[in-house]
Amino acid sequence: MNRTTVEDLLDRVRRGDLDVADATDQLAGVVPGLDHAAERVDGIAHLDHHRALRCGFPEVVFGASKTPTDLVAIAKSILERSETLLVTRVDNQRAAALSAAFEDAEHHVRAQAVTVRRGERKPGRPGLLILTAGTGDVPVAEEARVTAELMGQAPEVVHDVGVAGLHRILGESERLKAARVVIVAAGMDGALPSVVGGLVGVPVIAVPTSVGYGMSLDGLAPMLSMMNACAPGVCVVNVDNGFGAGYLGALINGT
Amino acid sequence: MNRTTVEDLLDRVRRGDLDVADATDQLAGVVPGLDHAAERVDGIAHLDHHRALRCGFPEVVFGASKTPTDLVAIAKSILERSETLLVTRVDNQRAAALSAAFEDAEHHVRAQAVTVRRGERKPGRPGLLILTAGTGDVPVAEEARVTAELMGQAPEVVHDVGVAGLHRILGESERLKAARVVIVAAGMDGALPSVVGGLVGVPVIAVPTSVGYGMSLDGLAPMLSMMNACAPGVCVVNVDNGFGAGYLGALINGT
Amino acid sequence: MNRTTVEDLLDRVRRGDLDVADATDQLAGVVPGLDHAAERVDGIAHLDHHRALRCGFPEVVFGASKTPTDLVAIAKSILERSETLLVTRVDNQRAAALSAAFEDAEHHVRAQAVTVRRGERKPGRPGLLILTAGTGDVPVAEEARVTAELMGQAPEVVHDVGVAGLHRILGESERLKAARVVIVAAGMDGALPSVVGGLVGVPVIAVPTSVGYGMSLDGLAPMLSMMNACAPGVCVVNVDNGFGAGYLGALINGT
Amino acid sequence: MNRTTVEDLLDRVRRGDLDVADATDQLAGVVPGLDHAAERVDGIAHLDHHRALRCGFPEVVFGASKTPTDLVAIAKSILERSETLLVTRVDNQRAAALSAAFEDAEHHVRAQAVTVRRGERKPGRPGLLILTAGTGDVPVAEEARVTAELMGQAPEVVHDVGVAGLHRILGESERLKAARVVIVAAGMDGALPSVVGGLVGVPVIAVPTSVGYGMSLDGLAPMLSMMNACAPGVCVVNVDNGFGAGYLGALINGT
Amino acid sequence: MNRTTVEDLLDRVRRGDLDVADATDQLAGVVPGLDHAAERVDGIAHLDHHRALRCGFPEVVFGASKTPTDLVAIAKSILERSETLLVTRVDNQRAAALSAAFEDAEHHVRAQAVTVRRGERKPGRPGLLILTAGTGDVPVAEEARVTAELMGQAPEVVHDVGVAGLHRILGESERLKAARVVIVAAGMDGALPSVVGGLVGVPVIAVPTSVGYGMSLDGLAPMLSMMNACAPGVCVVNVDNGFGAGYLGALINGT
Amino acid sequence: MNRTTVEDLLDRVRRGDLDVADATDQLAGVVPGLDHAAERVDGIAHLDHHRALRCGFPEVVFGASKTPTDLVAIAKSILERSETLLVTRVDNQRAAALSAAFEDAEHHVRAQAVTVRRGERKPGRPGLLILTAGTGDVPVAEEARVTAELMGQAPEVVHDVGVAGLHRILGESERLKAARVVIVAAGMDGALPSVVGGLVGVPVIAVPTSVGYGMSLDGLAPMLSMMNACAPGVCVVNVDNGFGAGYLGALINGT
Amino acid sequence: MNRTTVEDLLDRVRRGDLDVADATDQLAGVVPGLDHAAERVDGIAHLDHHRALRCGFPEVVFGASKTPTDLVAIAKSILERSETLLVTRVDNQRAAALSAAFEDAEHHVRAQAVTVRRGERKPGRPGLLILTAGTGDVPVAEEARVTAELMGQAPEVVHDVGVAGLHRILGESERLKAARVVIVAAGMDGALPSVVGGLVGVPVIAVPTSVGYGMSLDGLAPMLSMMNACAPGVCVVNVDNGFGAGYLGALINGT
Amino acid sequence: MNRTTVEDLLDRVRRGDLDVADATDQLAGVVPGLDHAAERVDGIAHLDHHRALRCGFPEVVFGASKTPTDLVAIAKSILERSETLLVTRVDNQRAAALSAAFEDAEHHVRAQAVTVRRGERKPGRPGLLILTAGTGDVPVAEEARVTAELMGQAPEVVHDVGVAGLHRILGESERLKAARVVIVAAGMDGALPSVVGGLVGVPVIAVPTSVGYGMSLDGLAPMLSMMNACAPGVCVVNVDNGFGAGYLGALINGT
Repeated sequence: MNRTTVEDLLDRVRRGDLDVADATDQLAGVVPGLDHAAERVDGIAHLDHHRALRCGFPEVVFGASKTPTDLVAIAKSILERSETLLVTRVDNQRAAALSAAFEDAEHHVRAQAVTVRRGERKPGRPGLLILTAGTGDVPVAEEARVTAELMGQAPEVVHDVGVAGLHRILGESERLKAARVVIVAAGMDGALPSVVGGLVGVPVIAVPTSVGYGMSLDGLAPMLSMMNACAPGVCVVNVDNGFGAGYLGALINGT
Repeated sequence: MNRTTVEDLLDRVRRGDLDVADATDQLAGVVPGLDHAAERVDGIAHLDHHRALRCGFPEVVFGASKTPTDLVAIAKSILERSETLLVTRVDNQRAAALSAAFEDAEHHVRAQAVTVRRGERKPGRPGLLILTAGTGDVPVAEEARVTAELMGQAPEVVHDVGVAGLHRILGESERLKAARVVIVAAGMDGALPSVVGGLVGVPVIAVPTSVGYGMSLDGLAPMLSMMNACAPGVCVVNVDNGFGAGYLGALINGT
Repeated sequence: MNRTTVEDLLDRVRRGDLDVADATDQLAGVVPGLDHAAERVDGIAHLDHHRALRCGFPEVVFGASKTPTDLVAIAKSILERSETLLVTRVDNQRAAALSAAFEDAEHHVRAQAVTVRRGERKPGRPGLLILTAGTGDVPVAEEARVTAELMGQAPEVVHDVGVAGLHRILGESERLKAARVVIVAAGMDGALPSVVGGLVGVPVIAVPTSVGYGMSLDGLAPMLSMMNACAPGVCVVNVDNGFGAGYLGALINGT
Repeated sequence: MNRTTVEDLLDRVRRGDLDVADATDQLAGVVPGLDHAAERVDGIAHLDHHRALRCGFPEVVFGASKTPTDLVAIAKSILERSETLLVTRVDNQRAAALSAAFEDAEHHVRAQAVTVRRGERKPGRPGLLILTAGTGDVPVAEEARVTAELMGQAPEVVHDVGVAGLHRILGESERLKAARVVIVAAGMDGALPSVVGGLVGVPVIAVPTSVGYGMSLDGLAPMLSMMNACAPGVCVVNVDNGFGAGYLGALINGT
Repeated sequence: MNRTTVEDLLDRVRRGDLDVADATDQLAGVVPGLDHAAERVDGIAHLDHHRALRCGFPEVVFGASKTPTDLVAIAKSILERSETLLVTRVDNQRAAALSAAFEDAEHHVRAQAVTVRRGERKPGRPGLLILTAGTGDVPVAEEARVTAELMGQAPEVVHDVGVAGLHRILGESERLKAARVVIVAAGMDGALPSVVGGLVGVPVIAVPTSVGYGMSLDGLAPMLSMMNACAPGVCVVNVDNGFGAGYLGALINGT
Repeated sequence: MNRTTVEDLLDRVRRGDLDVADATDQLAGVVPGLDHAAERVDGIAHLDHHRALRCGFPEVVFGASKTPTDLVAIAKSILERSETLLVTRVDNQRAAALSAAFEDAEHHVRAQAVTVRRGERKPGRPGLLILTAGTGDVPVAEEARVTAELMGQAPEVVHDVGVAGLHRILGESERLKAARVVIVAAGMDGALPSVVGGLVGVPVIAVPTSVGYGMSLDGLAPMLSMMNACAPGVCVVNVDNGFGAGYLGALINGT
Repeated sequence: MNRTTVEDLLDRVRRGDLDVADATDQLAGVVPGLDHAAERVDGIAHLDHHRALRCGFPEVVFGASKTPTDLVAIAKSILERSETLLVTRVDNQRAAALSAAFEDAEHHVRAQAVTVRRGERKPGRPGLLILTAGTGDVPVAEEARVTAELMGQAPEVVHDVGVAGLHRILGESERLKAARVVIVAAGMDGALPSVVGGLVGVPVIAVPTSVGYGMSLDGLAPMLSMMNACAPGVCVVNVDNGFGAGYLGALINGT
Repeated sequence: MNRTTVEDLLDRVRRGDLDVADATDQLAGVVPGLDHAAERVDGIAHLDHHRALRCGFPEVVFGASKTPTDLVAIAKSILERSETLLVTRVDNQRAAALSAAFEDAEHHVRAQAVTVRRGERKPGRPGLLILTAGTGDVPVAEEARVTAELMGQAPEVVHDVGVAGLHRILGESERLKAARVVIVAAGMDGALPSVVGGLVGVPVIAVPTSVGYGMSLDGLAPMLSMMNACAPGVCVVNVDNGFGAGYLGALINGT
């Protein structure tokens, strides 16, 4: 929309050929922030309620750096306009505060997440497969699962299929064939996404985890390995970012 | 398939209830490498002709580390069984050798790639949008475009829409709305994927490029920035890995 | 001032053409430390009371590594000669000790700072705008605000305008236009300074924060991103260095 | 501007209380890209001619990654609308191409830059001081000087005043006192900005240079040192980024 | 085994020339996971009981990231099929839980390991020598010793023979001559493996430890030093990986 | 040997109970450098001819940093006392100089090595298997092969069996079963050693290679991955260190 | 000493021309470890009592990684043969244990060290000057002071003379002129050694400290800066290594 | 010197009790730069002729970054006031230019240095020992030797005594005992300084070299190893900084 098209639009308004509401709608497409349901909570957080419309998902709340009180306030504000809520990285104290405030809150212990889902639940969409290389990667994978479920997915999860015992991943060939997108959480050598990427013809989302010690460097080693995966079709999200992997997996698998 | 199911299968063969060809087919699903059209070229390269079937795309040849003669030999071997060929990272000398050997080879100068496409060409699938932050990122984006086109996509490409002049990306709102997956190539601060990720509700594939100097550290700076993109739905591939981005973009957009 | 000019000066003193006080003043300009109000507290700290004159601000005290008792002693020494005091990085225990010692001490909880301001307060100078990308960056921005206020500024502060929801920063266009210098605190991808730098024609001071996880590497990722900001007019201070940003912002905005 | 204010505006247009041109102007403030003089050169570069208005300076062209032909084309496009042009990081071949194309082009050999300045030249604004620690830092400082001059500054430049011979910087006390902003280019230990920051009460822009060997790590060592400068009022730009330092210095010193 | 050989095999089964059990055995060699004694414990861990057969050692359990309850459950599952168990990185609480559950568990305090050894114990195999550079490296060396003993070795261990007092390692010439493989644990400068590698003609397994401070960087410094050992015959395992060193040492020394 | 045992020895010499030659032999075991056939070539190199006896292999010459003339001189000195010579990292010019000087020199082009082998050749010892993940890893693997052959091994070499096409390594199960030690050269994600380590029960020597681009960081990525291999029994040598891998492989396999 | 000279020596012993004690003494010069007063404490520590003779100082005990009981045992063993003892990095609990065990133990609180000095004390040797850039560097400097005093030095210590207030170091010109060796402890930008190195003509020992935050990277930043000091005559020891600096300073200043 | 003492001095001048020349001399001690023989060459280099007096050595010229013409001009300026000149890092072209300009210039090919020494030469001072670990470290050691000789030293140099063949360094026990300071140049594992530091009781200056490949990381690996040397008395200079080592060695050994 350039100056000319805006002038045309205004001209049509002036002549009465276009009414104000319609003109406003047309401008809304190009004026950032216009009609945006941004809301401030507690003077600090800047909630983006229209994200649900624009991107198909409400704003997720990163719980680790917020006080229980703030978390509850922010959660309330979101739930006034949205039927779903996801709070990640919550310890037991924060989870308890949320559970006390919202009767229908679910605490996913392994995923360290709290969710609220209201309204009718449709059956989840199949096609998303979540794998872990070892048992230490489970929390990250669970965060991905919880996220994806909230976005309407019905993910399958298979744990502990790392490459040091190759029969474990090869034994999952049925599931691999059925998948439309695969999330792979792995620490240490980060080798599983390369192997999975060579076995499937669908997108593979690699999540490095900070599981390991010494030269795993808190997830840097598997992250680098995954960035260099010799199988194409592999992409990488941040270390321990189960939420990001689940979100992206849901976007790719669709609804 | 465990011991029991294999014994059952063999038993049925023994009894004549299952013929040998069918039994072989069933075993082929679980015996890795069985019936695999692997072929050795020149005693070294190990071509994987069934990749085309398994993953929907023939093996890509990384041209940079091979001699022109080897490249032609490998290309020949692939083209005997496949209708498409992609050779990446070819300088002019290697491109000339391939063009001399294959009449229908196309040299994509900006992408530093050579392709051969035989057989009927269907119209490409729309929905893949490729963006660059600056003009220096063009070669990487072009490698992504060439790859995606070979996989049946009809990508749109928009260059030089980096965040320092925000109107440039905001001026592409129509294309952003229409996209089903977006590839973003950016060097230096690597900030564009975060911005794009906030504007769309579809997967964003971020490709860091080695464009820049000083603390860009050959692409490490934009890579880290992209790994930490504050918009969800963003994943990252290796620095300058236009091929990987195009391949993944095609997988996500489907065929 | 070379040997000849010193000899001339002394000659004029000898001849009575220049009196001793004036000669001393002239030498004071070139003799480092001459007439310097340096003072030792507790045998260790080396206070620089003339810094207030030379650089327009008393020495700031970095609270984190000092005992409450030492802090109070140092603060006393400063307040004997100065009307303002800033102690940064103070936890609640240290803040309590300072509050107990000085009736007029203010504890800025979010900024983790304690200040004392004596004498007449003039209205602050407008023109300094402080932005944060997310709520996690607030403490760093608050340290900048407290510092700038002590230096006579009246900063505006807007939180949580990160690039993943671009309408948030675009919605602040009035404030951006009015600013004469902008401080931007951001963790994770560190992308906000690049965007702001493209929207304004004034200096942008980028402060990376250690907010984030995984590959944010305690602030290294946003720091690198900011060093490579593709908009000119952006400079960077140390990770979490709100004090440094506020101080520099005040210097640039003037008094 | 929210929905209501837009509806009001349109309503006034509809009623004839506001004419179309004025309404367009009001919208221009909030619609990014509206009425923006963006122009595409050669299908790739995306020039931003309004940057001159918005930020007070035409787009600078980074010469290193462009062919001589492209550089001339881009330069032509800029000079059609702007009276000044700056091309940085040009080798002799690129400089020759630009000099051949534009009679009034100046090649700044040490700065590796080409400039064109048309129209009346006003005397430059004093107050910007540029220092180098050693002779190896001169090219970076010269790039800063050329940039600042193009932005209406009359910078003073003093070379080779590194801290290993402290009398050199102390001998410049007159210039230091007169400065309103100081740019310091230094490689190796990057210690000069700390020292200068302690001597002046004005902003110090530190530019790490890649001068040195071994553990200077191509400028990483001085960059880290500068980020940790113990004198407040110091900020840092990218390694070897003379342009960025000069640009920021001019913004701070004003016009 | 390719399609033809599988068809031949099936054909022989069909004709009755090969019975089903034998055919299954032959297939077992090529079908990964077939007849594999993988077992799931607690829905998460994926035990690999045949590893004992395939690789000569039961799966080791990494204790650090598991709850005492999980550890006991996993240990039980392993001991149902195996005569040996090794749990590494167990603190006192975990060790107590294991000791309570298994009467014959041994807690190796320095090695932070728990073992169970059932069945007849043969005398260990000599030839493995374990050295430490300093007393801080002892826990890592002890983990190696415990591991190796469980694999049938009778290692000799000599502590505190670092290169700063060269007579200490030179005084062990008898042991060095007798060794068939040497494990060297060292932190700080990591120099001991280079020296040992020059004194012996057998494999040297270097284990960097995180002992040290400052630029030892949690074991990175000795690791890099060991990777660059100027004596051939030296290889490196992960920082603090005593288990890996002991395991590899046992493999090399044989049984 | 302490003071007492030396005094005893001398006493026995004094009494005539031990003759001088035997006493010298006994002392030779503890006096470093005694009777050592060290020799200086060209005033700089310090050849260690007894290394052949002490460690079973003559000193290898690293060709990259020496002039052709120096190389020939050093080679001559070695061949006067030894029947074998290995010069690594020789370009064509250096190789030509050596071939001209020694009729029986062999130039191994892919391995970039020159060898001389004199005396009777016994059949090599089987049991050493060398694998590469991709064709780019071949030069490193060849350096390992040449080194091992010179030490009396008969290694098997299989190229291009990286994990992205898992059937390739699974198709080598016969060779894997037969191996007593495996060398694995891999760049990029460095995942192959983890997979191989899980398939065999013998030592695996992982050699990271500098093959790759972007975040492979010249071999750092595969090196880190290999250090974190989740299969035990894996150790790592320096990036591109084919010589070290071959040497260690030969030591482990024995003679 | 080669074979011939040893044979000669033995021959003289055999003939009675040299007695056993003298021969032993002559051999002691070349047999490492012969007659070495190494002693084992608690099965682990390997004390080197002759270090006092060979290197002029008893073995220092690094307290941080040892239990109070072990520390006392080791200290006892050292004090049986030595008149001085230095235990570094001791917290209050360890210091108390040592003070309880040895009446004449001194606890240096700031230096976190315990010393015992017996025998006559001579006046210390002047010439060693110890400087700190800030108050946070005091503990490191104090460790250096305690160490040097134990080695017979009478160091002067001046704190808080960092370069941000240059008059502070310039005000110490008398002390700088008198020094024969200078130790400089500095964190953050690590700039002080460069400045000091330019002011004196004697060796400067730079000790980086882990004082700082953000990009000081636990001392990496000042360490790199010091390695690149542009003044010659500067060398560097490990981060926070006050002991090493004091030891080296004493060696250089002599006794 | 504070305000009062300056006033006293001036008063005495005023009264005629102190003459101008003497007063100037007294002030010269505190006024930095006063009477300093700084001189500018070519508008850029800032020579410091008094360095020779202050620090005992003329300014060294780093040749690598200067043109042959500039080098000759700078050299001339130095030689007008000094009897000695050292130019480091000169290639053959630069060396030829200097040799052509100064008849008495000496080109030290291995050290890549040019020197001029005029006036009477006294015999050099013994006590400085320079060691290299391998032949690749020779150029760095030679730069140290040339530097030290110019400062009046008579260094001994022993090459190729790395720790992989320990007898080589042990065979130098006579020289080690005689040394008053030892310089050790080593690349790769950087282990030699630790060993030497344990054998001598004098200062050891460790110079990491960039000799090596892979994880030597251009000298970072030996640098880190040396920073963590477990023998006290070791300090480190920059990678390949032979000049710095020689200069410091001469300062320590004295004159």
